Amino acid sequence: MTRAILTLNSGSSSLKLGLFTEDLGTMAMCHVDRIGRREAAMKIRDAEGRDLPMPDHAPNAFRTNAAALRTALEVFRADFPGLEVVAIGHRVVHGGIKHNHPVRLTEEMMKDLARLAPFAPLHQPHNLAGVRAAVDTFPGVPNIACFDTAFHRGHPFVNDTFALPRRYYEKGVRRYGFHGLSYDYISGELARTEPALAAGRVVVAHLGSGASMCAIRNGQSIDSTMGFSALDGLPMGTRTGQLDPGVLLYLMDEEGLDSHQISDLVYKESGLLGMSGVSNDMRTLEGSTDPHAEEAIDYFTFRIRRELGALAAAMGGIDGLVFCGGIGENSANVRARVCEELGWLGIAIDGAKNTTHAREIGTGPVRVLVIPTNEEIVIARAAAAVLETLAA
Amino acid sequence: MTRAILTLNSGSSSLKLGLFTEDLGTMAMCHVDRIGRREAAMKIRDAEGRDLPMPDHAPNAFRTNAAALRTALEVFRADFPGLEVVAIGHRVVHGGIKHNHPVRLTEEMMKDLARLAPFAPLHQPHNLAGVRAAVDTFPGVPNIACFDTAFHRGHPFVNDTFALPRRYYEKGVRRYGFHGLSYDYISGELARTEPALAAGRVVVAHLGSGASMCAIRNGQSIDSTMGFSALDGLPMGTRTGQLDPGVLLYLMDEEGLDSHQISDLVYKESGLLGMSGVSNDMRTLEGSTDPHAEEAIDYFTFRIRRELGALAAAMGGIDGLVFCGGIGENSANVRARVCEELGWLGIAIDGAKNTTHAREIGTGPVRVLVIPTNEEIVIARAAAAVLETLAA
Repeated sequence: MTRAILTLNSGSSSLKLGLFTEDLGTMAMCHVDRIGRREAAMKIRDAEGRDLPMPDHAPNAFRTNAAALRTALEVFRADFPGLEVVAIGHRVVHGGIKHNHPVRLTEEMMKDLARLAPFAPLHQPHNLAGVRAAVDTFPGVPNIACFDTAFHRGHPFVNDTFALPRRYYEKGVRRYGFHGLSYDYISGELARTEPALAAGRVVVAHLGSGASMCAIRNGQSIDSTMGFSALDGLPMGTRTGQLDPGVLLYLMDEEGLDSHQISDLVYKESGLLGMSGVSNDMRTLEGSTDPHAEEAIDYFTFRIRRELGALAAAMGGIDGLVFCGGIGENSANVRARVCEELGWLGIAIDGAKNTTHAREIGTGPVRVLVIPTNEEIVIARAAAAVLETLAA
Repeated sequence: MTRAILTLNSGSSSLKLGLFTEDLGTMAMCHVDRIGRREAAMKIRDAEGRDLPMPDHAPNAFRTNAAALRTALEVFRADFPGLEVVAIGHRVVHGGIKHNHPVRLTEEMMKDLARLAPFAPLHQPHNLAGVRAAVDTFPGVPNIACFDTAFHRGHPFVNDTFALPRRYYEKGVRRYGFHGLSYDYISGELARTEPALAAGRVVVAHLGSGASMCAIRNGQSIDSTMGFSALDGLPMGTRTGQLDPGVLLYLMDEEGLDSHQISDLVYKESGLLGMSGVSNDMRTLEGSTDPHAEEAIDYFTFRIRRELGALAAAMGGIDGLVFCGGIGENSANVRARVCEELGWLGIAIDGAKNTTHAREIGTGPVRVLVIPTNEEIVIARAAAAVLETLAA
């Protein structure tokens, strides 16, 4: 028998699974994309990061997230005979104002979290559908929710509120911040490997198809570029990032768009894709000769610098900058362009180290690091901690 | 005969007039508030800033902006016998993508500017109504429009665009920036009195019931906190400032608000008023013992610091900070609270000088100045320049 912790990140048309030993060794990772479409595809990697060969799948293997979960589990079970999942950790985007820690899920808690769907309509329902699928598939196994908002719950009031009438704050219209699992991981890595820096003022730039930045002082999140929704702050693959609220009023009044049309526009048709007209993928843009692709990268890196200044102000200065996420870890070009006009802040980087994605690329008084993030291990740790509590 | 230049700033329920000699000496200023309401009130000040006694007014004296204009002119004419208005300069909020300079108004131009109303629905129609009233009142006298957007028209592309699909940029959905007349004035004062600083990187904080900040490098606007509308950036008396676009989607989907209701909420019920529940007036908040008033001031000053960091990033550093506008010029408290956590940027102020509103209050390497702004003189200068062209 092989006891294992499963982590699950269930999105609108994707599913990410992690399989860990009880002492948190990685066994395998699985990623299913474009669920519900003919082009759905699954990738499974082993502990060393090697792609495993995929068996042929039944036509309905990826019709829904629940089907994709069953299909992935079949592959896991073939690779690990006697596999027994003993706990399941879930990424849940929104924990509302209450949760600053992972929680074990009960029926009551599930209902609570479902009530937060209006705060994250494009994510929360899919996350909870993943939990539901896991509950059905593994009866009696504990499910643990890890929230993207939890790491930010200690924000000072000025970073938690908008200048709306106060009743909106009471209702939960706040600057939650997201990508908390990633920031939690990086913060932990800094505490473990760079205790002096971790005690200071660090901006972490989580740059992927979703992107945000977080100001962390002495291990505590102080401010983040994402606010109420996963839309604010930096431009992303297909999302606008910061947008003048007057633009939405214009879209309503002048173009007659309703909320669904606006939501599609600002979440799915904007960002790098909308600006470039080429792609939402940074690698494609970097390889493109289209001047609009270049402008999109310019805008992306400019907004990162602009938010870096804002977050430094929120902390009263900056001692370190950490890049993570798909773009942050892999695009030397983006890192170089972000840093090249930051000398005034004490930020400078070594071109050669940057090109080879070295861990430490800074040469100025402000440390500049590249640290691969690992949201799955943060979820697995939370699940393991709950298992320990149950065993105690 | 007394030849004079008239400046006119016509709002939704207010009218501000300036009367200047042809060589730009101030003759009188007039402010009418709450036009169309029973409590409408007019104040006229002479060249020395003394309030002039007001005659009794007819019941309909302030029924409309045009009526208020006629009433103010009667007072001016009584004070300056033989008054002849030879040019009229108008503040017009929006000049669109074309105008980076004042223009003499023609019927054709008026139609052009009316087409920009969707970009500034709460301001542009009232500004143009003021022009119309002046045209009717002074047939044959040249009218000159001075745009709040003009000073910002040279922004680099990254500061002029949002990450929306490119067709929106082409349509004019851009980060225009406003308060350009004020920034133009301050920039001119710096060039005149502080040429070395004016050649550097300066953030100007125009803090009034409307509030924004502008990054000016070598006299050129590089970036501003206001974007497409006069709503973005800093919180204001009754406006939100920066707001996650996801909040507007929430208001539409969850509260069923339409664009008029949202517009009222974010323009008229938010900001200092909405946060404090006490007042939109900084002086009232500073005198209040309500903890929510204190929180509103905290938020206001925090957001100024945060934007200061962002604007410094946009310029690659900062050499000076200038406060202006009603709050910027008169609230030592706000200036002190903004600056107290900016030591990391090289900003520090002298408490005593700050309290007396001295012109130079900084003690750190970054200069900190308080310069009373004067939007009317910028308009009068533009009108005088057109007169010269006509005479040539």
